[in-house]
Amino acid sequence: MNEGFLLVLSAPSGCGKTTILRQVMADLSGLSFSVSHTTRKPRLGEENGRDYHFVSPEQFIALRDQQPAGFLEWAEVHGNFYGTSRQEVAQRLRAGADVILDIDVQGAAQVRNNAEPVTVFIAPPSLEELERRLRGRGTESEENLQRRLANAAQEMEAAPAYTYLIVNDKLEEAVLALKSVIIAERCRRRR
Amino acid sequence: MNEGFLLVLSAPSGCGKTTILRQVMADLSGLSFSVSHTTRKPRLGEENGRDYHFVSPEQFIALRDQQPAGFLEWAEVHGNFYGTSRQEVAQRLRAGADVILDIDVQGAAQVRNNAEPVTVFIAPPSLEELERRLRGRGTESEENLQRRLANAAQEMEAAPAYTYLIVNDKLEEAVLALKSVIIAERCRRRR
Repeated sequence: MNEGFLLVLSAPSGCGKTTILRQVMADLSGLSFSVSHTTRKPRLGEENGRDYHFVSPEQFIALRDQQPAGFLEWAEVHGNFYGTSRQEVAQRLRAGADVILDIDVQGAAQVRNNAEPVTVFIAPPSLEELERRLRGRGTESEENLQRRLANAAQEMEAAPAYTYLIVNDKLEEAVLALKSVIIAERCRRRR
Repeated sequence: MNEGFLLVLSAPSGCGKTTILRQVMADLSGLSFSVSHTTRKPRLGEENGRDYHFVSPEQFIALRDQQPAGFLEWAEVHGNFYGTSRQEVAQRLRAGADVILDIDVQGAAQVRNNAEPVTVFIAPPSLEELERRLRGRGTESEENLQRRLANAAQEMEAAPAYTYLIVNDKLEEAVLALKSVIIAERCRRRR
């Protein structure tokens, strides 16, 4: 059994990342998501160890401050902590799974400091096209839409730090590209 | 138009490289072979510039001894010189083509010294399986077969130096793997 590899996937919102990822997961086996740790309370129907590892702030901070860091990346959102456990990811990799982390550009930068991930950035063909798609949904307030576009412009500045850049012009080509990255990385010789 | 990349492909004989490559070329566009230089005489039907660039030994040696080297790799076989022109490859890459060099492990080592190729080694599942396949063809003398196997064993020692290793266990999976490497490398960010 070969060890798996760690795949970090980032994209500005509206770039089709979720759709692409769903199709890739349906077509390829051997992929795995890690279960995050969080300090927020479980919601109805959420199960500890399946949806999240629900921990206390003290437990979270103890893990975070280990050396080496217990989290490959972590963030505070609306007063709650969220993190990706180094140990859990390592276990999945050792079991031969390729682990996908679906995280933003700040999280990706942290993972790069703590591990050697393969990183993929999914970009829109242009900011104009992204705006056209977001308006096409018709579900966003003008304020939200402007905020998303400003965030997207900022996140795209991080794209050069990624291993692969997939431009989601045509959905099926973007799906093929992400599948190809995964199949190719499985053939790639590692140190 | 993005610049293409240089793909070096090596495999011991009997590993199915030619079959894999033919299927990949049929399925993907944008791939190109470079035309080699040689000092041997044209055979009937061979055309200068299409099958080979036919040159004199003096022309070949002048190119070979340029700084930087005029050939990405060269070899002498049965008293004739063969080489892959750096300039011709560079022109194809600039035109946006991905250039495939189908060469042995010695040639691949030379190209690595002269350029930054993506390198793919196609291996049999095992030497035993390679022997079974070669015997299955029924076209080889025992002496030839033993020579091929000894060469294969030696060439496989060079596999760790390659970027990608594709084990040709099932032909269709090996074809998918090589196609995936090419599609993925087209998304890969280069320095």
